[in-house]
Amino acid sequence: MEAERTLHAEELTRLGELAAQLRVDAIRSSTRAGSGHPTSSLSAADLLAVLISRHLRYHWTDPRGRTNDHLIFSKGHASPLLYAVFKAVGAITDQELVETYRQFGSRLQGHPTPALPWVDVATGSLGQGLPVGVGIALAGRYLDHLPFHVWALCGDSEMAEGSIWEALDKAGHYGLRNLTAIVDVNRFGQRGPTELEWDLDTYRRRVEAFGCQALVIDGHDLAAIDEALSRARQATGPTVVLARTVKGKGVPEVEDQPGWHGKPLKPDMAERAVEALGGVRQIRVTGPRPEPAPPAGAPAGKPPVLPRYDKGAKVATRNAYGDALHALGARPEVVALDGEVSDSTRADKFGEAYPDRFFEMFISEQQLIAAAVGLQVRGYRPFAATFAAFFSRAYDFVRMAGISKADIALSGSHSGVEIGADGPSQMGLEDLAAMRAVQGSTVLYPSDAVSCAALVAQMVDRKGVTYLRTTRGKYPVLYDNEDAFPVGGSKLLRGGGDDDDVALIGAGVTVHNCLAAADELAREGIKARVIDLYSIKPLDRDRLVDAVRATGGRLLVVEDHYPEGGLGSAVLESLADLAEPARVKHLAVRGLPTSGTPTQLMDQAGIGVSAIVAAARASEPPSR
Amino acid sequence: MEAERTLHAEELTRLGELAAQLRVDAIRSSTRAGSGHPTSSLSAADLLAVLISRHLRYHWTDPRGRTNDHLIFSKGHASPLLYAVFKAVGAITDQELVETYRQFGSRLQGHPTPALPWVDVATGSLGQGLPVGVGIALAGRYLDHLPFHVWALCGDSEMAEGSIWEALDKAGHYGLRNLTAIVDVNRFGQRGPTELEWDLDTYRRRVEAFGCQALVIDGHDLAAIDEALSRARQATGPTVVLARTVKGKGVPEVEDQPGWHGKPLKPDMAERAVEALGGVRQIRVTGPRPEPAPPAGAPAGKPPVLPRYDKGAKVATRNAYGDALHALGARPEVVALDGEVSDSTRADKFGEAYPDRFFEMFISEQQLIAAAVGLQVRGYRPFAATFAAFFSRAYDFVRMAGISKADIALSGSHSGVEIGADGPSQMGLEDLAAMRAVQGSTVLYPSDAVSCAALVAQMVDRKGVTYLRTTRGKYPVLYDNEDAFPVGGSKLLRGGGDDDDVALIGAGVTVHNCLAAADELAREGIKARVIDLYSIKPLDRDRLVDAVRATGGRLLVVEDHYPEGGLGSAVLESLADLAEPARVKHLAVRGLPTSGTPTQLMDQAGIGVSAIVAAARASEPPSR
Repeated sequence: MEAERTLHAEELTRLGELAAQLRVDAIRSSTRAGSGHPTSSLSAADLLAVLISRHLRYHWTDPRGRTNDHLIFSKGHASPLLYAVFKAVGAITDQELVETYRQFGSRLQGHPTPALPWVDVATGSLGQGLPVGVGIALAGRYLDHLPFHVWALCGDSEMAEGSIWEALDKAGHYGLRNLTAIVDVNRFGQRGPTELEWDLDTYRRRVEAFGCQALVIDGHDLAAIDEALSRARQATGPTVVLARTVKGKGVPEVEDQPGWHGKPLKPDMAERAVEALGGVRQIRVTGPRPEPAPPAGAPAGKPPVLPRYDKGAKVATRNAYGDALHALGARPEVVALDGEVSDSTRADKFGEAYPDRFFEMFISEQQLIAAAVGLQVRGYRPFAATFAAFFSRAYDFVRMAGISKADIALSGSHSGVEIGADGPSQMGLEDLAAMRAVQGSTVLYPSDAVSCAALVAQMVDRKGVTYLRTTRGKYPVLYDNEDAFPVGGSKLLRGGGDDDDVALIGAGVTVHNCLAAADELAREGIKARVIDLYSIKPLDRDRLVDAVRATGGRLLVVEDHYPEGGLGSAVLESLADLAEPARVKHLAVRGLPTSGTPTQLMDQAGIGVSAIVAAARASEPPSR
Repeated sequence: MEAERTLHAEELTRLGELAAQLRVDAIRSSTRAGSGHPTSSLSAADLLAVLISRHLRYHWTDPRGRTNDHLIFSKGHASPLLYAVFKAVGAITDQELVETYRQFGSRLQGHPTPALPWVDVATGSLGQGLPVGVGIALAGRYLDHLPFHVWALCGDSEMAEGSIWEALDKAGHYGLRNLTAIVDVNRFGQRGPTELEWDLDTYRRRVEAFGCQALVIDGHDLAAIDEALSRARQATGPTVVLARTVKGKGVPEVEDQPGWHGKPLKPDMAERAVEALGGVRQIRVTGPRPEPAPPAGAPAGKPPVLPRYDKGAKVATRNAYGDALHALGARPEVVALDGEVSDSTRADKFGEAYPDRFFEMFISEQQLIAAAVGLQVRGYRPFAATFAAFFSRAYDFVRMAGISKADIALSGSHSGVEIGADGPSQMGLEDLAAMRAVQGSTVLYPSDAVSCAALVAQMVDRKGVTYLRTTRGKYPVLYDNEDAFPVGGSKLLRGGGDDDDVALIGAGVTVHNCLAAADELAREGIKARVIDLYSIKPLDRDRLVDAVRATGGRLLVVEDHYPEGGLGSAVLESLADLAEPARVKHLAVRGLPTSGTPTQLMDQAGIGVSAIVAAARASEPPSR
């Protein structure tokens, strides 16, 4: 075995030439673009030359191949190196590399995105690629049972992100021997030296304490790299290769110099550097190929049988989430993830029925989202759940999932002041604003168990980030099990005639308050239309426009959320350009909540029944 | 010295009695409330009994005392224990404890908040108390030079949060010998066993690898606790006491049992437990007192002299942020924090001038915010800066800062597609939505250097979370140095007569696009009013109402942000209930951006000059 790992002189020369080409190309593309991160690419060129030549098992013409390894640039700013790799393996042409990098309309963007078929996820927000790699490796080890390996190139600066340690902790916990992080320890961040510079021993102790094998090497020693990557592939657990490197390696003018982060070489410098590196090459490397994929024999599973509820029975929507997710388990591609609160989010029902497809992430919400993103890279349909408030812990990961166009389903329980005595730290009160603002997202907020289950069933096939908000308490089932709840739809629960006086618009728990208010208003002779806007993004604009026309523009929106960016804003954005004028009263949580009962807190916030009644009474049409 | 640490039998008895009282009171309050986390309190009762009796130096009648130690319940759900401590030291009465815990209107909320004078910050989102403690300890060691100590009680579940490791890393890096984390390793989380259960040795290796002293003890051995806390106080670096404890300790029915997280004992169980623990006590403990505070002799500093800019000169607002922050450095309470991008955010100018008040947090945005929150606990005025996009990494910390009513100033640079070639991962496009939705926040987005500097000057005295959004590129200075830019105000840049045809409303970079569009529209005979809405929260509603009246309700809002929850929503929310009808066209970034030049990307997003001109031309009044 050992002999196989020792490189012949000829192979060393070949690898050196390839590394030089990667350096040259990283310089050429970034200098031509006038921006980019060549020095961060130069430090890792030797690592990548060895990886792609001898270890990464990948069919470049078949990026969807099920046994391909995965290559993730967690240090996404080293995109000049990644794209130079793509040229070296023949995936893109030299012309595309040099002429289009960072140009408008090019798929070779400043940081990698899945606009490129060989890129699994967008990176560029540091500390995210490795956690996503954990998710991919979880799929490989526990679901696919395929021999692919996940290779994540990390920067040393990003080792300061807590998310990296969440990832290594989970890699160790789950024994992900199919995962290798390669850390390019070039000792420089953006503005100067990193915290640990070249203190490889401290990195080693940290990595080992977090349950991973650490291999400390000289990141410019091709034979040492080769041996480390061989050992990583054969390891019995996750490996972190800690490679001591020199930023700007290969270009003496910038080697190990501060002030060169994110700066292309000037054209004359670039010319000198390219010449010193031996000029432009067109080496085409053919690395190892993956094993043939076994037949994709996953059984189709049974059609899910959704739970049914009795109208009027009191059921929490979080329970309906658990029931529906459990039902969706009939589809083998559905997997679930927990942030150590599955007894609250009710994801535990799935976990008990399908323990092989249930991943406990403990209290690490960033890794929770990242693992979901990684699982969907492998074609699974992940459902991740925690308290609505605690998705805020992973907001950057959700943001990046949007940019990756990752298909993930998120369920946030314990939303709003409705949760009661636990107080504001546990209340999701900004989640609708945050989730709506995610690129390509869907935001759902059902009021009852039937609609919740129907929406969960649609989440499984929804594109992009889909967020479901559930409620802690039990409220009456409002709908028939046969009712349809299309995403983008809404429901009319009271009124609907052209003589309605006012439209009460709620979602989730406030729908129930609106209904009670409508009943009270009816006793006063005020006809209130009640709309359940269970789909907050996309929104049922037609329903709102009709309400404006019928009521002469008297709308009242009620939400258990801070006033900014939530349901009220969604309604207003939707009607902004409507010709017919509307006056929208907006009841929301305007102060800082405290502890109390749900009713006390909703009343205090002015979103309870009496506040709705009072606001509806005072509702006036727009002036004309 | 050793002799002093050894407890006499009499003292051990006293401590045991106090611990029993803390347990009894935690049981009584939570059972009476019908909710809460007694078992998570019972495990840490011995730790707290020793801490408050013999180590925590605190004047309970003078919670603002400058030499008081700080006590932070990072595991905020153990509030029954914290409030039992408050009773034991005489800060609250037994009646308040037992009768008001978790009740509506009580300051004894489900999780601690600064509504209580002895609580520095709200906790309850796990993994945040310790990072905030790092900020307080930074202040003690590097700014106050006072001998107070910071004690953070952590749960073992929260050790899975990356933020804990960001905190310990920084504690080690900054040699915070005035910081001790006490980890209550009771091996149970909410839904079951923690990841590491009682693997104290793994915790120890991790803690040590992150640069802290680890002391592993039996958390129910009073003498061992006492010795560990003595050693912690005398340590030369940060200490983590890893205390092996039993969840529910003292109540055999629930000791070390799953299924008892967050559940009060039933009244009959509670009665038995209280009796077995020796019944209700009214022990009053007097712990050590802090040293007298030296005279608060900090010089008042000089009045800041704000930078001045030449009208028409091209200056990036991020540069103006750096200039103004540098000027504010004349006030000694102003401190700055960097997320390893100070050369981009321009915070480096402050760092060079005031290195003693500049804290490098490297790439750990959660710790960046937490340190700011901790510094403001000690009366400093922290300014923390990173890319606008990367505050999303710390959104839960910003959310909790809002609940804590922490006075922190945040500056997010590189907002919007305007940043150009780096691509979407680096673009803040959801920051306005997220930051607006934070309780009590202020959101500012200046268009030029003069207004930016003027706003930065106001941030220093602003209450709550204040967020400033800056722009990467250079744009002309629009205002005179003498102009005023009150928070909540706006500026009229074109038009203003009753015959304006349309109002173009922008903020930041889009103000410049609106101005160019207005000029072009003027050539076509269309009178466009241009409003610079530099204060997004609070918003200048009067200015908007006037624009509605003057233009017959023809408004056009243009923003470099996703369409949801940003400037457009702020305008719409503000005008929702206006009697006079308005039609608001809303130009925002509706697709997923790519790389390109700022102009290419703004044009692609439909927020460039030509899109504004076209939309303004097509603008129609509401029907009447």
